[in-house]
Amino acid sequence: MRMVDLIEKKRDGHQLTKAEIRYAVEGYTKGEIPDYQMSALAMAIFFQDMSTEERAELTMAMVESGDQIDLSSIEGIKVDKHSTGGVGDKTTIALAPLVAALGVPVAKMSGRGLGHTGGTIDKLEAIPGFSVELETSQFLKLVNQNKLSVVGQTGNLTPADKKLYALRDVTATVNSIPLIASSIMSKKIASGADAIVLDVKTGSGAFMKEFDQAKELAEAMVAIGKSLGRNTMAVISDMNQPLGRTVGNALEIREAIEMLRGEGPADLVELCLTLGSHMVYLADRADSVEEAREKLVEVIANGQAIETLKTFIEAQGGDPAVVDDPTRLPQAQLKIPVKAEQDGKVAAIVADKIGTAAMLLGAGRATKESTIDLAVGIELEKKIGDDVKRGETIATLHANQQDVDEVVAMVRQAYSISEGESNRPPLIYEEIH
Amino acid sequence: MRMVDLIEKKRDGHQLTKAEIRYAVEGYTKGEIPDYQMSALAMAIFFQDMSTEERAELTMAMVESGDQIDLSSIEGIKVDKHSTGGVGDKTTIALAPLVAALGVPVAKMSGRGLGHTGGTIDKLEAIPGFSVELETSQFLKLVNQNKLSVVGQTGNLTPADKKLYALRDVTATVNSIPLIASSIMSKKIASGADAIVLDVKTGSGAFMKEFDQAKELAEAMVAIGKSLGRNTMAVISDMNQPLGRTVGNALEIREAIEMLRGEGPADLVELCLTLGSHMVYLADRADSVEEAREKLVEVIANGQAIETLKTFIEAQGGDPAVVDDPTRLPQAQLKIPVKAEQDGKVAAIVADKIGTAAMLLGAGRATKESTIDLAVGIELEKKIGDDVKRGETIATLHANQQDVDEVVAMVRQAYSISEGESNRPPLIYEEIH
Repeated sequence: MRMVDLIEKKRDGHQLTKAEIRYAVEGYTKGEIPDYQMSALAMAIFFQDMSTEERAELTMAMVESGDQIDLSSIEGIKVDKHSTGGVGDKTTIALAPLVAALGVPVAKMSGRGLGHTGGTIDKLEAIPGFSVELETSQFLKLVNQNKLSVVGQTGNLTPADKKLYALRDVTATVNSIPLIASSIMSKKIASGADAIVLDVKTGSGAFMKEFDQAKELAEAMVAIGKSLGRNTMAVISDMNQPLGRTVGNALEIREAIEMLRGEGPADLVELCLTLGSHMVYLADRADSVEEAREKLVEVIANGQAIETLKTFIEAQGGDPAVVDDPTRLPQAQLKIPVKAEQDGKVAAIVADKIGTAAMLLGAGRATKESTIDLAVGIELEKKIGDDVKRGETIATLHANQQDVDEVVAMVRQAYSISEGESNRPPLIYEEIH
Repeated sequence: MRMVDLIEKKRDGHQLTKAEIRYAVEGYTKGEIPDYQMSALAMAIFFQDMSTEERAELTMAMVESGDQIDLSSIEGIKVDKHSTGGVGDKTTIALAPLVAALGVPVAKMSGRGLGHTGGTIDKLEAIPGFSVELETSQFLKLVNQNKLSVVGQTGNLTPADKKLYALRDVTATVNSIPLIASSIMSKKIASGADAIVLDVKTGSGAFMKEFDQAKELAEAMVAIGKSLGRNTMAVISDMNQPLGRTVGNALEIREAIEMLRGEGPADLVELCLTLGSHMVYLADRADSVEEAREKLVEVIANGQAIETLKTFIEAQGGDPAVVDDPTRLPQAQLKIPVKAEQDGKVAAIVADKIGTAAMLLGAGRATKESTIDLAVGIELEKKIGDDVKRGETIATLHANQQDVDEVVAMVRQAYSISEGESNRPPLIYEEIH
C-alpha cells in the first residue's frame, strides 16, 4: 500500500477501505507517513467528503492510536456529554450533579484548553481546595460511590487526532465535517462512553455559524456513534448570545450552583433539562425522555441535585460551603458597570466579543503558557429581547485591573440595541436521533 | 501574510494575488514554508484551479526562484521548442539543424532525464566524440557562428519547480493543468526563450491520454507564454503509436539524419515541418507559416539542412562522417526479429510497451544511477494501418544481450493485429495560437 495512491483515490472521489484508513492513520501516528501526505489527504477529504463507513473507520483508527479509558468497573451505563463549545457554557458543571442525582454514573475526564474562559476543570478549581488530580483507582471509586467524579485527562488519548488536528490547523483543513465529527467522536469513545449526548451549537458565537452546517455535523456524529455501537443523539442549541448570564470561571460556578438550586437563568435551565433528560433516558434511568425530565425537575426541587453537588465537591477535597455561600469563591476587586448609550431593546449580543472581553480581563488562556484569573469575568445584566434605558447597566465587568476602557468598549460593541421589536432566539432548534 | 490564509483562500475558490503567490513560492524555495502547507495548497489548486493571471504569476515566481540563462548576446529571436514527451520522439535532433539552416538561432540546454530512452543530450552522445559539456562562452559563440549548439543544463534553474514537482509526485497533485503548465513554462522562460513552440502529445503513449486534456494544457501554456510576453503557440500531435520507426539512442540519431536527408518516415517529417515552420515564422525568418514550410522543404532538398547538421556535429567535437555513414554510430551485436503470429492490419501499437521494451534492452534509465547502452533499441517495421502476414517481421530488436524473450513478448503484445480495416491516426490534431 502506498499513501500517494490513497490520496489519489480520495482525490478522485472514491471510498477508502478500512485497511487503507488504518494504514494512513497508523502510519501517520508512528511518523512513517509524513505531514505533507497527510495534509494532502485532508484537503482531498475536504473536497470529496467521506461516507459514514469511512468516518466510523477513521474514528476507530484514531481511538486505537492511543490509550482507551476502561470504565468497565463502573456500574451502569456511562453516558458522556459533549458540547461543540460556546461562550458562557457552564452546562457540564450543572448537568453532571443533576443527572448523577438520578443515579446516572458520570465519570468525566476533561481538558484545560485555550479559549475565552478555562475548561471545565479550570472552572472547578475556582472552588477552594478542589482537586482534579486523582489516581485512576480513586476516580473510579468515587464514581461508584457518588455517581460522579471529574478529573484532568491522563494517559495518551487519541494521539492520531492530536497530531492530525495540529496539522489541519495550519493547512486550512479544520472546517471539514467528516474530520470534525471523527475528531470529536474519537475522543468520546476513547474516554470510555457507552452512550453520548451531543450539544451542537449554532449561531454567531458558535464554530458552526449556520444552522445547516450544525445539523450536518450533528447528523455526522450521531451516525458515527451508532455505527460504532454507541447510543448517540444530538441537540442543536442556540449560540447567538452567550449562555446564561455569566462568563468567567468562578462566576460560572456560581451560576451552576444557582441552576441546581432552581434559581438559574431560563436558557441554562432549559438546556440542562433537555440534555439531562436525554442522558437519563440513554442511561436507562427513565422509561421516556419526558419521564426523565420530570425526575430532573424533581431532584432540583427536593434538593437532591444540590446535595449531590456538595458531596461531589467534598469528595474531591473542595469546600462544600461555597454551595450555600458563593462569596467564598474567588471574588474580583472591582465591579465595573457597562451602561447603555440609548433606549431600546437588546437585538443581538455578539458572543465572540463577550468571550474575547472576558479573556482580556484574564478569564481565559490566549496561549498554553497563560495563567487564568479565576475571579474575573463578565456578568450580562441584559440579554436579547430585554428592554434597556439609556444609562442603565447592560453588563458588569468583574475585574482585577483598573485599566478596562478597551474591555468596556468591546462589551458595549457586542450589544446591539434597537428601537424596534426583537425576538428572543429559540434555545433548542432540533434534536437528531 | 500567513500561508494558512492563502491555502484557505484558494480552497474557497478565490484568486491569489501576485504578492501571495510570490510569498508562497519564495517561502517554499527557502524552506520557510513547510512541505505540508505547500501540498495542501497544491491539492486546493487541483480542485479550484487557477486563473491565467495566477498561472503566469506562479510561472514567473518559479523562474525567479533560481538562475536564468542570458541569451541576449545571441543575435535574432531565440525560439525554443518543447515536447510533453512520447516514445521515439527524436524531433529536437532533426528540427534543430533544420531551422538553424534557415538562420533561426537554436541555443538549447537540455537534460538527461529518466525514461524509455535517454534525453536529447544522451542521444547526441551516440555520435563518436560529440561533447555536450561546453563553457557557456563557447556555447554562445557557436550559436552566433553556426546558429546551433546543444549542451547539458548548467546552473540552478527553477529550483522552486524542482522542489514542488518532487512534492506533487508523492501527494497525488501532479495531474493539475495549472501546475503542469506553469512547471513547463517556467523552465522554458528560465532557459531564455523569446518565443516558444509547444508540441503537446495526446493518445495512449502520452501523459495526456485524452485530447480534451491535451488541448486544455496546450491552451494553458500558450496563455501563460503570451501573458509573459513570449510569443507562444502549440501543436497537438498524436502519440497513439511511437513516432517514426526507431526507439533507442543511436537508432534515433540515424533516423534524424535520414529525415534531414529527405528520407525520413512520413510522420516524423510532417511533425518536423509543422513545428519547424512555426519556429521559423516566430523567429521572423518567413512572412507566413506557409512560406516557412516551403523554405524548410527547400533546405532539405538542397542539402543545406544536412550540412548544418555536419557543421553542428563537428563544432562540438563529434565525427561528422556519421552523417554520410550511419554505421559509424554504435551498433548492437544482435538483430532479433519479432514476427507476426497472424495475418491482418496493424490496428494499434501501445507506445508505452514499446518504450518499456526499449528500456529493458538498456536504451533508457530506470533510475538516476542506470547507465544507457546507446546502441540498443527497437526498429518498428510495421506501423498502424500497415498490412501484415503471419511470420512477417513487425519489429526488430537491436540488442546486446541474448536473453530477450521477455522483450520479444512485450513488443508482440504492444501490437494489435486485426482482420478489419484500420485507419492511420491523424498526426496533427490542432494548433493553438
